[in-house]
Amino acid sequence: MSNSRVSDVNTQRVDSPAEEKASFARGAAFVDGKIVPVGDAKISILDWGFLRSDATYDVVHVWNGRFFRLQDHLDRFSRGMKRLRMTIPYSDAEIQSILQECVLAAGLTNAYVEVVCTRGIPLPGSRDPRQCTNKFYAFAVPFTWIATEEQRVRGLRMRISNVHRIAPEAVDPTIKNYHWLDLINSLFEAYNFGDETAVLTDGREHVIEGPGFNIFAVIDGIIVTPRSGVLEGITRQTVIDLAEMGGYELQQRALKVDEFRDATEIFISSTAGGVMPVGWIDGKVVGTGGRGPLTEKIQKHYWELHIDPAFSTPVSQ
Amino acid sequence: MSNSRVSDVNTQRVDSPAEEKASFARGAAFVDGKIVPVGDAKISILDWGFLRSDATYDVVHVWNGRFFRLQDHLDRFSRGMKRLRMTIPYSDAEIQSILQECVLAAGLTNAYVEVVCTRGIPLPGSRDPRQCTNKFYAFAVPFTWIATEEQRVRGLRMRISNVHRIAPEAVDPTIKNYHWLDLINSLFEAYNFGDETAVLTDGREHVIEGPGFNIFAVIDGIIVTPRSGVLEGITRQTVIDLAEMGGYELQQRALKVDEFRDATEIFISSTAGGVMPVGWIDGKVVGTGGRGPLTEKIQKHYWELHIDPAFSTPVSQ
Repeated sequence: MSNSRVSDVNTQRVDSPAEEKASFARGAAFVDGKIVPVGDAKISILDWGFLRSDATYDVVHVWNGRFFRLQDHLDRFSRGMKRLRMTIPYSDAEIQSILQECVLAAGLTNAYVEVVCTRGIPLPGSRDPRQCTNKFYAFAVPFTWIATEEQRVRGLRMRISNVHRIAPEAVDPTIKNYHWLDLINSLFEAYNFGDETAVLTDGREHVIEGPGFNIFAVIDGIIVTPRSGVLEGITRQTVIDLAEMGGYELQQRALKVDEFRDATEIFISSTAGGVMPVGWIDGKVVGTGGRGPLTEKIQKHYWELHIDPAFSTPVSQ
Repeated sequence: MSNSRVSDVNTQRVDSPAEEKASFARGAAFVDGKIVPVGDAKISILDWGFLRSDATYDVVHVWNGRFFRLQDHLDRFSRGMKRLRMTIPYSDAEIQSILQECVLAAGLTNAYVEVVCTRGIPLPGSRDPRQCTNKFYAFAVPFTWIATEEQRVRGLRMRISNVHRIAPEAVDPTIKNYHWLDLINSLFEAYNFGDETAVLTDGREHVIEGPGFNIFAVIDGIIVTPRSGVLEGITRQTVIDLAEMGGYELQQRALKVDEFRDATEIFISSTAGGVMPVGWIDGKVVGTGGRGPLTEKIQKHYWELHIDPAFSTPVSQ
């Protein structure tokens, strides 16, 4: 994206600086080549990204004015599009410029920044996905957390759901996708029990992942996280990297429900909040309760990485 | 919906009759309380109906100016919303008025008419689906067919996919939903082999359903269709009803891949085209080839039902 195009984009905004600030307060989006207030950002009801959930996306966050692992997110997004046989006319550098524009337009220091590629609209009368022109959207909104400040210290109340996670033989979980009805259903089930979040199984006694996060359990001093059937989360990868840097043993392998229940510590990882402890499973206290010592260390190191130039890039360059 | 409200809706359209006709030629939609050309119908990028595919929908068709089994579609839509814990402020009678308005605005005699309920937009910073105001959308577009006119006589070329259908333990298929990535992936796989459509299995050697349709096989003179793991299609139900009316034996039971391959006739059922024959499975001719005699009878009776007042209601009353 050239500078002139970025300038063009700027001129599309509303006129009055005060009104502009107000309208962009909830975030900014890139739709049909323009930066608009996120409240005005819309997609066609006929886009298969909606009517077939035929889309892939990614979410990178900005913390203290710096993107965290942006290139890793763009790489995953690119792999997802390729696997869904989608293409967009933007290079990584152009996408980065667009995201920068969104964050700056919204005036955000800490942001949740999403990129989306949808199949687009089929030709009239056609149901052939090969004839669609794929569409690219992006938006930046204020940073959101899966766990509240209190929950990030005392730990989340988690329920092991009766709902199974969509199997990798049906939908490849390494393509980040919007097929969330299993996850949503598990949340309602958890709420019914007075719990705050849920983890889904593969239906064969292994825990897999929850609504928007990967899972980790500390078992006999070793950190264990499921190897397959899961989204290859960037925060998950960061925990794996941190374990290596910190000299903690970490295993990627199938994680049985019973092992998970008996773990001394449990935590989740997500772009929406980083590393967050789980304090209860099905109403039973995990380990000795609260945030475990290993979880606290990794949580602390995770946030320290956000000023490391090897892991983060400034929004304004 | 009162008549005055319908009139209000009419006044929202563009002024010039010629322009109006042109802009509505591709269909009409009901969005945010207004009837608009379908090309202008948009949903917020922040609606979880998009960002989580947290939505249910239904499609009824209009043939020769009559809705086909409208109440059955509205009943299923209503059950789907209830199971997803969604509510909308419209009665069935009001929805029917809205759909009527869409069909009339688009000037369609034969139409594909979709109703959608989405979770809506969460409160700023929240990820709690209980705090969303659910949204209702509808649109009418020209009738679309899964099979072309030629394919409806010679039969479709179908591939038995390596992709598994999303399991009912993950996402309840009786809630009509937009989780289509498994179906889309199976289509690309079929295209790679020069085939035209696909059927997915449960991963345990049973065929389940395909992209937008249920399946039927004639085995030893008996019509067999899968009982579980499938959308309870209205066209599927119509075939069951027609078999009973016509005195044909029909079984709802698990259907093995091998039985399916060796069937003497295979056909699919969908609102998007009714009853349509399958001529080839994995490149091998089904039965003696072309449209089988039982398929042809049911296909004919299916269209005859469209003037029966027990199954259809006029758009203009």
